Amino acid sequence: MSTRQRVRPGGRSARVQASVHTAVRELLEEGGREALTVPLVAQRAGVTPSTVYRRWGTLQELLSDVAVERLRPDTAPEDHGDLRSDLTAWAEQFLDEMTSASGRAYIRDALLGDPDGDNAGQCSAYAAEQINVILARAADRGEHGPDVETVMDRIVAPMMYRILFRPAGLHAAYARRLVTGLFAGRGKDEQ
Amino acid sequence: MSTRQRVRPGGRSARVQASVHTAVRELLEEGGREALTVPLVAQRAGVTPSTVYRRWGTLQELLSDVAVERLRPDTAPEDHGDLRSDLTAWAEQFLDEMTSASGRAYIRDALLGDPDGDNAGQCSAYAAEQINVILARAADRGEHGPDVETVMDRIVAPMMYRILFRPAGLHAAYARRLVTGLFAGRGKDEQ
Repeated sequence: MSTRQRVRPGGRSARVQASVHTAVRELLEEGGREALTVPLVAQRAGVTPSTVYRRWGTLQELLSDVAVERLRPDTAPEDHGDLRSDLTAWAEQFLDEMTSASGRAYIRDALLGDPDGDNAGQCSAYAAEQINVILARAADRGEHGPDVETVMDRIVAPMMYRILFRPAGLHAAYARRLVTGLFAGRGKDEQ
Repeated sequence: MSTRQRVRPGGRSARVQASVHTAVRELLEEGGREALTVPLVAQRAGVTPSTVYRRWGTLQELLSDVAVERLRPDTAPEDHGDLRSDLTAWAEQFLDEMTSASGRAYIRDALLGDPDGDNAGQCSAYAAEQINVILARAADRGEHGPDVETVMDRIVAPMMYRILFRPAGLHAAYARRLVTGLFAGRGKDEQ
């Protein structure tokens, strides 16, 4: 959430947010972001431009909020029967989504219109929540796993760093290698 | 380098770049980025605004180029006598610089005004060059070390990911822990 929108809105406020977000997504699909302006978004959403400015401040902050909403996972990670398979499948899917053209654009938007870092923090929290589901499931099976921050450092951080700073050669094999490396470094009693 | 400036300029071109970069740095120090405009930068640099627009396109692209220039390391990593000490000292210093207010602002600027990713790639290349110096020095001593991409994944990526997405608790102890983890995961014959 941007500075101007820290609380979850309800009622009319929620309807305005939903229609503005929908307008942004539709206009992005139709014409790309070059042509996007606040008046255009407002017209499509059926609100006044000043409503948009009051709530989001700038187009960039609005795009950042929309991007975070799009980056929210809509399903729990798949259960493949053991921790290593679960992490591998999740990492492959995460990398695939984030390296897509729209994934890269959303990551960029989320960071750019977010000077206080709240939206970036939310993106990171989404990944951590997914990993926590995988780790809790492993614990239920009696598997010993790493903690969530270790998985963030060893799996999520390298993928996200490379997407932003070093994007050559990012394929599923890279995601698998990260998971293999995480397990290779662990003692037998931990696995 | 932004799209508009792929070749290293020489002569007048180099002087224009130097004076525009200096103008940006001075104005940032004096008034912060809120007050910064292309005409202001041009006036301070003694060039016309159209020179700046022609070369950098937008203020954001200019800020991105200046940021990358500021993020360029100006000295080789210190030599502490062995690979682990060298990596630890380098990681601590890197984290300290990048988590400073100006470091964070430069990372942001470098990413924001850089839609094609060249400047982000340059930031990553600077880190990789420094690590290559440390690894070459270790090889000269007869030490066996990890390869540069492994160090990027295990040391640089987690620090940069957390600076951007998960900034709580980033202190020197975190940098040291990453290096410890890298060595803990290696067999005795590799150390």
